[in-house]
Amino acid sequence: MSLTLNSPLDMHLHLRDDAMLSHVAPYTAEQFAGAMVMPNLLPPLTTKEAIDAYRKRIETATGRDDFRPYMTLFLKETLSYERLVELKPSIIAVKLYPSGVTTNSDTGLASIDVEGLRPTLEAMSELDIPLSIHGETNGFVMDREKEFMPIFEALAAAFPKLKIIMEHISSKEAITTLDKYPNLYATVTVHHLLLTLDDVIGGMLQPHTFCKPIIKTPADRDAIQRAVLSGHPKIMFGSDSAPHPKEKKESAAGSAGIFSAPVVLPLLADFFDRHGKLDLLQGFVSDHAQNIYGITPPEHIVTLEKAEWVVPEQIFDVVPLFAGQKISYRLVK
Amino acid sequence: MSLTLNSPLDMHLHLRDDAMLSHVAPYTAEQFAGAMVMPNLLPPLTTKEAIDAYRKRIETATGRDDFRPYMTLFLKETLSYERLVELKPSIIAVKLYPSGVTTNSDTGLASIDVEGLRPTLEAMSELDIPLSIHGETNGFVMDREKEFMPIFEALAAAFPKLKIIMEHISSKEAITTLDKYPNLYATVTVHHLLLTLDDVIGGMLQPHTFCKPIIKTPADRDAIQRAVLSGHPKIMFGSDSAPHPKEKKESAAGSAGIFSAPVVLPLLADFFDRHGKLDLLQGFVSDHAQNIYGITPPEHIVTLEKAEWVVPEQIFDVVPLFAGQKISYRLVK
Repeated sequence: MSLTLNSPLDMHLHLRDDAMLSHVAPYTAEQFAGAMVMPNLLPPLTTKEAIDAYRKRIETATGRDDFRPYMTLFLKETLSYERLVELKPSIIAVKLYPSGVTTNSDTGLASIDVEGLRPTLEAMSELDIPLSIHGETNGFVMDREKEFMPIFEALAAAFPKLKIIMEHISSKEAITTLDKYPNLYATVTVHHLLLTLDDVIGGMLQPHTFCKPIIKTPADRDAIQRAVLSGHPKIMFGSDSAPHPKEKKESAAGSAGIFSAPVVLPLLADFFDRHGKLDLLQGFVSDHAQNIYGITPPEHIVTLEKAEWVVPEQIFDVVPLFAGQKISYRLVK
Repeated sequence: MSLTLNSPLDMHLHLRDDAMLSHVAPYTAEQFAGAMVMPNLLPPLTTKEAIDAYRKRIETATGRDDFRPYMTLFLKETLSYERLVELKPSIIAVKLYPSGVTTNSDTGLASIDVEGLRPTLEAMSELDIPLSIHGETNGFVMDREKEFMPIFEALAAAFPKLKIIMEHISSKEAITTLDKYPNLYATVTVHHLLLTLDDVIGGMLQPHTFCKPIIKTPADRDAIQRAVLSGHPKIMFGSDSAPHPKEKKESAAGSAGIFSAPVVLPLLADFFDRHGKLDLLQGFVSDHAQNIYGITPPEHIVTLEKAEWVVPEQIFDVVPLFAGQKISYRLVK
């Protein structure tokens, strides 16, 4: 049995730079027609020049006409209307990181001050540039996303024309909040869709499933699954694939991030198939994102077949999600 | 300023065997007059001969007359009255591990069947041999201890003369259960007293604070702190110090266990001092255990002074708790 997807999109991706970029980007480019690329490099991407140069490095690393990187800007300071007009051709969204919540987020916003953000967000509303948010506080690890919900609500209410993307949602509270405001949207990762905290700390310690937001409870996962399996049009796939070298993960102070890129479409096909909802996969991995962002990605037909394979233990110096495990779908190359 | 403790006791300790035993045992023996030693070796300690031989190896490793190992038996099968009469001179307690909950527990009990345990537990009641329990189910990692509470209650009600020790309690529910039955007692570790899950997965991943039961929420920690700082006579100190080589912790499948032995008394002195309760430390680290177990440990005066030191980054091939961090009390040797 095989399955074709028209121009799948990964709407949340970390590609890193230099050697890591060249190692990991082809895995995404072979499965997707495009990906929204995160700007948390060191230093973060805050200028048109830096973003355009990074896009070129990504295009060199992938070397395919049927894959388009959709770029983002790291929000550090007020952006004027004029600045955003200049940036708009180079970006698909502006990304907001609260300071300290994840890898390379130290230069993010120390506090989310809705009124302080007003000039920037009004200009973004007018120019129809979406705001992408890593929605976590600095509270207790299991409560950080839940605690951030009032901020999503305040932003959605204050800027009703602004599209706000709740990135890599991990909690049942996020699903509830998503449905309260028409201008809230969400990405869901394959790991928050399939796993729970038991897969991180329930048996032996699994550093390769450690990420932020932390993977949460069975109740949280079930709420995310129900929403995705309902064909929710405001939810789109974003892998948050975030490679770190094995030695940075298996360490006394392990880095947060899961390298899922090599396995995301096979895992999603298996998940939708097991739930008898393969007809909803196209929407989740492409159509919803095209509607939300108003984009038309390159033509790129991706075929998967139902055939078991074993995920490699290591890809270059990175351990991928489901390393050494069997998956029931595979990419037809 | 200095502080003396009379015959402190660590009522839950993993000393391992062979080279690891010889490396770690001296850290406990210099701080304590005795320790209750866990039987989860490979193979587990299930016979008088194995227990007596292990005691001798511990005595060789510590080489001190003022330190006494209190031995335990790993419960695998029904123990007759006669068998327990024979074992009693060699042990202080029988340890019950549900299968699969922690290091080397695979041969533990697959289910906790109160009636199936009746012959063993009635004989133990009659002979006044306490039952020590790792109280976790195989459920979701954050709920395992809470889910075990009905089993503690059923055992406490069915065997009212049996002393039952709830080991290394980690949840507010355990504090509540402890107070429901006069024959329930508890040990508390220094890590469950001081840390939360944020210290494991809240920032970078910290494999050296990963243990079972997992360290839980601020509310759980606060409930444990309140109980300990009330001078609760049914709560005693048990470190659950459980060394694993650094490479087994910083791994793709990291072992559960914290090597706290080198720092436990300094950390406890600091904690009780910060809360203005230094007068309650003697009870927590010795008197309560002497009363509960009816033991008289060797004379062993331990002195601590208020003087800052930095915990070594590594002790042999093990990374201790608080490695590289400052502690405000130190042992006077």
